[in-house]
Amino acid sequence: MTPVHNSRVLFNKIPTGYPIPGETTVYDDTPTIDLDNVALNGGVLLKTIALSIDPHMRGKMRDASIKSYSAAYEVAKPLSNYGVAKVLRSESHKFQPGDFVVGLIDFEKYTVRNDVDALLLINNKFNLPLHSFLGACGSRGQTAYYAWREFVKPNPGDTAFVSTGAGAVGAVFVQLAKEAGYKVIASAGSEKKVEFLKSIGTDVAFNYKTEKTADVLQKHGPVHIYFDNVGGETLEAALSNMADFGLIIACGMASGYNSAPYHVKNLMSIVAKRLTIRGFIASDFHGKYRDEFFQEIPPKYAQGHLKIMEENIIGLENAEEAIVSVQKGTNWGKVVVIVADA
Amino acid sequence: MTPVHNSRVLFNKIPTGYPIPGETTVYDDTPTIDLDNVALNGGVLLKTIALSIDPHMRGKMRDASIKSYSAAYEVAKPLSNYGVAKVLRSESHKFQPGDFVVGLIDFEKYTVRNDVDALLLINNKFNLPLHSFLGACGSRGQTAYYAWREFVKPNPGDTAFVSTGAGAVGAVFVQLAKEAGYKVIASAGSEKKVEFLKSIGTDVAFNYKTEKTADVLQKHGPVHIYFDNVGGETLEAALSNMADFGLIIACGMASGYNSAPYHVKNLMSIVAKRLTIRGFIASDFHGKYRDEFFQEIPPKYAQGHLKIMEENIIGLENAEEAIVSVQKGTNWGKVVVIVADA
Repeated sequence: MTPVHNSRVLFNKIPTGYPIPGETTVYDDTPTIDLDNVALNGGVLLKTIALSIDPHMRGKMRDASIKSYSAAYEVAKPLSNYGVAKVLRSESHKFQPGDFVVGLIDFEKYTVRNDVDALLLINNKFNLPLHSFLGACGSRGQTAYYAWREFVKPNPGDTAFVSTGAGAVGAVFVQLAKEAGYKVIASAGSEKKVEFLKSIGTDVAFNYKTEKTADVLQKHGPVHIYFDNVGGETLEAALSNMADFGLIIACGMASGYNSAPYHVKNLMSIVAKRLTIRGFIASDFHGKYRDEFFQEIPPKYAQGHLKIMEENIIGLENAEEAIVSVQKGTNWGKVVVIVADA
Repeated sequence: MTPVHNSRVLFNKIPTGYPIPGETTVYDDTPTIDLDNVALNGGVLLKTIALSIDPHMRGKMRDASIKSYSAAYEVAKPLSNYGVAKVLRSESHKFQPGDFVVGLIDFEKYTVRNDVDALLLINNKFNLPLHSFLGACGSRGQTAYYAWREFVKPNPGDTAFVSTGAGAVGAVFVQLAKEAGYKVIASAGSEKKVEFLKSIGTDVAFNYKTEKTADVLQKHGPVHIYFDNVGGETLEAALSNMADFGLIIACGMASGYNSAPYHVKNLMSIVAKRLTIRGFIASDFHGKYRDEFFQEIPPKYAQGHLKIMEENIIGLENAEEAIVSVQKGTNWGKVVVIVADA
C-alpha cells in the first residue's frame, strides 16, 4: 500500500504565557507512513481516534531541566496526552487488530508502540462513545473518583467546595459529593457552566468572574472539603472559609500555569484550623482504584446518572487551538480532539 | 492575715509589631489579696510558681473580634499561659493544699480558680524541677510528642527537617526523630543553639542567619518530614526540597507573627510532590496521648536522655521583657518565669 500522510503536532518552543499555535506548537503534515509494512518489532500499530486536551499539558511545556512529576515535552517531538486508539496491526499477544486502547498517545495520526503494557484495553460493554474514555469514564473521571475514594471519609450534611466545578474532573467530584449527601458549592467561569452545575444538583453554583469566591464561601460555608484545581486566590478564599479539621485536596493549581502565581497570604489558617492538605496525582492510584472505577462509573454514565459537559473538536489540525482554549478557559466542556472515525 | 500584694501583668494594648513592655502589657503591683479569707466558692487558691513564655502568646494579643483557635487576651485583664502553681487552699475534692498543678494560669502571683477540671495534678515521681513541667515534660514536650505520634509512621533512614530546632518543641522533636533512626537536619538562629543541636545528635545543624536554608536542604535533603514552626521563607525552602509523598507538620508560622507574612511562592510543589500538610495544635490530643507522654517523657528527661535548653527568668516583674525576647528570638532557651519558690 502506498504510504499515507502521518500528520502530527510537534512541540516547538517553550512558551512564556499562553501557548501560541504555530510557535509553541507546530502542525506538521509532511511525514508519511506505510501502514502495511512499517516494522512493529513485537509492538502494535495504532490509529489515533481521539486525544484529550487538558490543563496539565501546559506544565509539560517547560525546560526539561526543571523536574516535575510529569516529563517535559521534547522540542521537535510530538505532544502527547491521554488518547483512544484502534489497533490496526499487532505482533503482541496482548492486543488484536480491531481492539481499542486508551493510554498516553502521541499527537499523530498513526503510531507504532512497543511499550504495550502502557496501553489499556477498552472493555466497552455499554457501547459508549469512545471519547467518553477520555472524560467521565477516563482520566478525568478517574482523577475525581480516586481523590474521593482515597481522601474523603464521607459525612453526609458536610459542605464540599469544588473549583472548576464544570470541568470534567470537577463535575464528577460534584456528583460523587452530592451522591454522598454533601451540600456542594462549585465555581465556574461562565453562566453556561453555572447552569450546567445547577443541572447536576450543585446546591450553590456561581460564576467566580462576577461573584467573589470569598463572599460566596463566607455566606454558604464553612467548607469541610475543598477540591482544589486552581490554587491562588481561590485557595486563599477557601483557607479563610474552611471548617476546623477540614480537608483540602490539592489536585492542580491552574491559576498559576500561564502567569506568575498569586501568592496565598493566609497559610496560618492551616495551623489555626488544623487543616489537612493532600497533594494528589491520579496516576498514583490506578493500581488501587482503577478496577472499581470501571465497574462503577461507566454504567452510571451510560444511564445518564453522571454527566459532564463535552466538547468535541474535529481534526488533529485543530488541536493547537483546542490547547489554547483549555488554558484560557474559553472552552465550555471537556475538550477532546477527534482525530479519525473508529 | 493582712492582705498581701497580688502583682500581675495586664494586657493593655494590641501591638502592631513586637510587643512593647509598659505599652502592650503593664506590670501592676496595686492589687492585694487576703490569702486566708478570700472566698473560694468550691474552688482552689493557687500560688503561681512558674509561667511559661511561648511564641504563640503573640497570637492572643489581637482584636478579640478576629477568631482563632485560641481566645484573644482581654484588655485590662492578666495575660495567661501554661504555668505551674501550688495549691494553698482547696474546697474541691480534686486537690489538697500542697499539691502542684499545671494548666493555663493567669500572670498573677495568686489566683482563685473554680474551673478545677482545667488544672492537672503534677505527679512528680522523679522529683524533677517544677519548671520542667512547662518545658520538656510539659506543653512543649507534648507538642512535639503528640505531633510525632499522630502523624509520623517512622521509617528509619528517612530525613527529618526541624525549624526552630533548638527551641523546646523542636529539640524534643529532633530527639524523637533521632531515636527513631532518622537523619535530622535542624535550623536555629545562633551559634550557641547550633552547638546545642549538635550535642543532642542532630546530623546537620545550621544557623539560618548565616546559611541559606534552601542551600542546606538541597545539599542534605530531600526531606521526608518537615516539622514547621516558622512558615514563610523556611516553608518555601522546605517545599522545594521535600521528597515525593513527604509530610509537613504545620505547628506554627512564627515568621509572620510580628510582621507581614512572607508569601510562599511554590505551593504547586504540594501537588507535584503529592505532599501531605497537617495543621496541628497540641491541645487537641491530650485525651489521646497525654497519659503515654507522662509515662514516657519524664523518665527520659530525669535520666538525661532528653534535653532542652532552659532559661529561667526570676520574678514576675521580668515577664514582659521575657515575652519580647521570645518573640525576637533573642532568648537562648525555653523561657520560664519563676514567680515564686515552691
